[in-house]
Amino acid sequence: MIYFDSDYMTGAHPRVMERLVATNGLHTKGYGRDEFTARARRLILDACGLGQGEVYLLEGGTQTNAVVIDRLLDHNDGVIAADTAHINVHEAGAIESNGHKILALPGHDGKLKAEDIQQYLRDFYNDDTNHYMVKPAMVYISFPTELGTVYTHEELKAIREVCDEYDMPLYADGARLAYGLAAGGTDVTLRELATMCDVFYIGGTKCGALLGEAVVTRRPELLRRFVSLIKVHGATLAKGRVLGVQFETLFTDGLYEQIGRHAVEMALRLKAGFISKGHKLYIDSPTNQQFFVLPNDKIDSLRRVASFELWGPRGEHETPVRFVTDWATSPEDIDKLIDAL
Amino acid sequence: MIYFDSDYMTGAHPRVMERLVATNGLHTKGYGRDEFTARARRLILDACGLGQGEVYLLEGGTQTNAVVIDRLLDHNDGVIAADTAHINVHEAGAIESNGHKILALPGHDGKLKAEDIQQYLRDFYNDDTNHYMVKPAMVYISFPTELGTVYTHEELKAIREVCDEYDMPLYADGARLAYGLAAGGTDVTLRELATMCDVFYIGGTKCGALLGEAVVTRRPELLRRFVSLIKVHGATLAKGRVLGVQFETLFTDGLYEQIGRHAVEMALRLKAGFISKGHKLYIDSPTNQQFFVLPNDKIDSLRRVASFELWGPRGEHETPVRFVTDWATSPEDIDKLIDAL
Amino acid sequence: MIYFDSDYMTGAHPRVMERLVATNGLHTKGYGRDEFTARARRLILDACGLGQGEVYLLEGGTQTNAVVIDRLLDHNDGVIAADTAHINVHEAGAIESNGHKILALPGHDGKLKAEDIQQYLRDFYNDDTNHYMVKPAMVYISFPTELGTVYTHEELKAIREVCDEYDMPLYADGARLAYGLAAGGTDVTLRELATMCDVFYIGGTKCGALLGEAVVTRRPELLRRFVSLIKVHGATLAKGRVLGVQFETLFTDGLYEQIGRHAVEMALRLKAGFISKGHKLYIDSPTNQQFFVLPNDKIDSLRRVASFELWGPRGEHETPVRFVTDWATSPEDIDKLIDAL
Amino acid sequence: MIYFDSDYMTGAHPRVMERLVATNGLHTKGYGRDEFTARARRLILDACGLGQGEVYLLEGGTQTNAVVIDRLLDHNDGVIAADTAHINVHEAGAIESNGHKILALPGHDGKLKAEDIQQYLRDFYNDDTNHYMVKPAMVYISFPTELGTVYTHEELKAIREVCDEYDMPLYADGARLAYGLAAGGTDVTLRELATMCDVFYIGGTKCGALLGEAVVTRRPELLRRFVSLIKVHGATLAKGRVLGVQFETLFTDGLYEQIGRHAVEMALRLKAGFISKGHKLYIDSPTNQQFFVLPNDKIDSLRRVASFELWGPRGEHETPVRFVTDWATSPEDIDKLIDAL
Repeated sequence: MIYFDSDYMTGAHPRVMERLVATNGLHTKGYGRDEFTARARRLILDACGLGQGEVYLLEGGTQTNAVVIDRLLDHNDGVIAADTAHINVHEAGAIESNGHKILALPGHDGKLKAEDIQQYLRDFYNDDTNHYMVKPAMVYISFPTELGTVYTHEELKAIREVCDEYDMPLYADGARLAYGLAAGGTDVTLRELATMCDVFYIGGTKCGALLGEAVVTRRPELLRRFVSLIKVHGATLAKGRVLGVQFETLFTDGLYEQIGRHAVEMALRLKAGFISKGHKLYIDSPTNQQFFVLPNDKIDSLRRVASFELWGPRGEHETPVRFVTDWATSPEDIDKLIDAL
Repeated sequence: MIYFDSDYMTGAHPRVMERLVATNGLHTKGYGRDEFTARARRLILDACGLGQGEVYLLEGGTQTNAVVIDRLLDHNDGVIAADTAHINVHEAGAIESNGHKILALPGHDGKLKAEDIQQYLRDFYNDDTNHYMVKPAMVYISFPTELGTVYTHEELKAIREVCDEYDMPLYADGARLAYGLAAGGTDVTLRELATMCDVFYIGGTKCGALLGEAVVTRRPELLRRFVSLIKVHGATLAKGRVLGVQFETLFTDGLYEQIGRHAVEMALRLKAGFISKGHKLYIDSPTNQQFFVLPNDKIDSLRRVASFELWGPRGEHETPVRFVTDWATSPEDIDKLIDAL
Repeated sequence: MIYFDSDYMTGAHPRVMERLVATNGLHTKGYGRDEFTARARRLILDACGLGQGEVYLLEGGTQTNAVVIDRLLDHNDGVIAADTAHINVHEAGAIESNGHKILALPGHDGKLKAEDIQQYLRDFYNDDTNHYMVKPAMVYISFPTELGTVYTHEELKAIREVCDEYDMPLYADGARLAYGLAAGGTDVTLRELATMCDVFYIGGTKCGALLGEAVVTRRPELLRRFVSLIKVHGATLAKGRVLGVQFETLFTDGLYEQIGRHAVEMALRLKAGFISKGHKLYIDSPTNQQFFVLPNDKIDSLRRVASFELWGPRGEHETPVRFVTDWATSPEDIDKLIDAL
Repeated sequence: MIYFDSDYMTGAHPRVMERLVATNGLHTKGYGRDEFTARARRLILDACGLGQGEVYLLEGGTQTNAVVIDRLLDHNDGVIAADTAHINVHEAGAIESNGHKILALPGHDGKLKAEDIQQYLRDFYNDDTNHYMVKPAMVYISFPTELGTVYTHEELKAIREVCDEYDMPLYADGARLAYGLAAGGTDVTLRELATMCDVFYIGGTKCGALLGEAVVTRRPELLRRFVSLIKVHGATLAKGRVLGVQFETLFTDGLYEQIGRHAVEMALRLKAGFISKGHKLYIDSPTNQQFFVLPNDKIDSLRRVASFELWGPRGEHETPVRFVTDWATSPEDIDKLIDAL
């Protein structure tokens, strides 16, 4: 069996595991006050080109989105997001469970368009009854998106300008950031993302770690008393070093970029294979998630050799499917899959 | 100045006020344990043709929706509603503030279509990842809708059947129920609504009372420990009699129906007047809210003699507007308005 | 039967009812944007001696406490209150339902002592682990307290100083404020309360209105976007005029003070009667709530002529009881009660 | 430097790390649907002697308490706990942030007494106003307690009986369960705990794992739709195997018991040493947490060779301190510490 279900089906990248083992016996302070976490913070700020920022290490993506958004929004503020946004679809209502409405705008291949946000805000502020409506108070984007697409520098800049005009923080969900940065078709670098967004997170879980996401902000004042709020959300790891050691390793000798590049390379090889076999794309993704529309019988036969996800409910004759690569995907895996097509 | 902004611009219907004055000095128990509330409950159950049901008197509509929905939904359950639903637009995120997501479906003149709900549920239950999605666990409709439209018996029956198929409670927001029941184009009676819905409320505030909404259910077990939950939401009136006396009066000698009929009659007279003057409808409403699209200059001139609301942001040349009638609207008011057109 | 259960067993003071009737037919804007509410605001600010403050009219006490405290506290902040505080005992957990912990300190006849607060804060700030503890961020007092007692100017000043030292807002629950201001044994005036507290509310429901509480602050910036937050909590009255008209009347020609003085006079007459009959006080209250400890058989016989509340669970031989007076209590009522003792 | 701050200052027990490394490359399903988690579940149920129960693996203690309590309580229910309970002191208000009040009773060396619970419930149900009070709906105990003490079989049985009488679930926080089970002075076994409690959790983080807590229940119906609720709370680990592998290892060849026994042995050696040097106990703990009262100068000198926590604010002359042992503590560490006394 070859595995393409997702990018969290193995453990951590071997170098991460080695480092966890090597440091296992050392004594450190708990709750993220250890030296590994301190070093990870510095390495991440350097990689982001931030002198003054702050970094917080959390455990998982849904949790990270919930805590950050809960911090950035006041009572009865809402967050603007694409209708396909992870927070709007696959987080079981975690944002609403903290009392915040998601103001969903139609996505364009998973992306928000600056003019849609602009229009929504203009209508809101022109509405005399808006004090009884949920105030749009921040923008959530995912980079890359849930559909594997990425924003260009221009697209991101346009959204940033709308956020500036209405004084709203821009937050990017980087669960799969490594793959977004390695993607063709984007000219957005980590440093640009770090300056364009007010807050964003660098995904670890889906990018080579056992678990962990690194929240980064160039405006620490936005994450007021964040250590306490993380605790309130039950998102504090007593052995915070487990996160510190992993991110320290991921941001040493370019491991994070390397993981991203490898997975994207494998993904493009996979895409080329499907196209060569005459299969149609469900969406054209430049990252480690690839989406095709396959005939149901083809899906059934393929499932004997490979595991992958249906993307939504099964259709009558054909169904969208998703194949995901990661650090553990080998060229041989891809070739075996293509042969089985 | 003639007033058409809404149906809450005067006090209560004179008969309601008279009764409040007549009973003012009597001593009763507090918190709705008084005899007026007890009588109001019986009168309402009789009017609904319910032998076994339960009635709770609350203060306002947003509050009532919040408490009822909070009771009917489990953690991370969501409520299906039209995108134009009051809970989705003009309640400042009160539903989300209690932790529940609104699953908004495209409205059809403010109404939900049974087949849309059906499709949404089919897709949800066919999705392998739905344990990480918000479970659609109840349906919210408004009767009449925020656009003044009403469901037919057939439409309501179809929604009821979907709710039965998926074992979901159906809840109707009756903030303007009196006008919905008096509307032409519907064959839905109060008794039918009471049996079709699991829970609904009879609007008082917008239908002749100073304040107050009566939550009615034929399935008391659905509103478990409701008295405590109302208190948690700060929705308990110490002098509950104020609600009891009003609803007792509204449901004596057919006052509630009479208020509905009068306002609808005035509204239709108003609509006829606008049409006769060649103005176009924004939507064709059979109830006490009438919507037109007027040229901006006409709006400006009309505002010198009458007050009314723009329906959404002001357009470049023309803008949708809303005129609302109630118990206090007189034929003379209408005629003055039409003359001024 | 003579009624002493509480101060919400009749309707409104006759002058309030007359005014509601007189203004019933007039058209006004909704949601508190009417001229009655505007006048009530001005009258209240004048009575409080506040030039710059703000006033908001809400419906009930539990609701008012929930909205104000929800506004004054940040995520995972807590409110310091006496263990006997209404918010800690008889509001069904409304404060916690909004996510805030009540930090209960032992009450002294229902009152907080400045030194207890001081000590609690000193311990908190000396604790290295306090970022994982709930931060005490405001102080709640009731004036008068749930046990009918009142703070002296000195006591209040001492609490104010602790609040200043730790930069915490001081909030007073004035559900029965009229009686607290009319009480002997206090030298606290409305103007002093208004300057000593950052926010407080003037009780209407229990002081002669049908319903309504007036939130007053000399620091409007503390109640940021309060109109929206009130709506989120479902605490907005569409016919806000109902509150405006009542408070306008209560603060015209000294009616509010008059209601307080009358009820306290009746309460003292009642207390004197009980003492003359050799009954012992449960607590010595100078306000409209009087507490005694009565033998159970006496309670049973007395209940044939008068209604009143047991204060807590019934004891084996004797039980604390509460008698409450209000605007509607007459000297004859008191004398009948005493005769029946 | 020798480390006694807490039991989360190193990584995982070497056997746990070895197993994580050995399984790192294998592909498994995500979100706890992997075979390691399945095996861990079975091993835990066997160790608990439960045929029918259910096990859920979460990340940390505060999170676990928050999710379980949120599931067991209905709106405006409260949880009875000792005033020293972790949920009441050191979880930053996480329980309240989910809307639930903690009903704190005075602890006895950190333990609840059955008769105190009994009395609280009797008073609650005898109070006519209890529908406006928070309903005590479950009991939280910690085993061992935050003060290192343990319940005897008799004490636990008495609490169980009160819970049965009032039909309330009993939940035990087992963050340090390994040490409680290894403690002298208790006759409570894992199997007894599993049958006495409705729900409890087996602590991993503080008992030899990198992270992870195992929620166990013999009544799966109590944790309705728990997988979704865990997600709502952001407590779902994508690479659930990380938890599965660790608990599988901890419950293979008695590793969990072995870790508990070793740490307790070290703790008793430490206690004996302190006593032999004439220092007084702050509390007499039979588990891996030891509490003494030391002169401040002694604390200062000791801190040059060992790290440990002050237990609460520093006193004027002496201060309570805590020393904690775990799998990594060696006899040599203890002896060095005692020599330094």
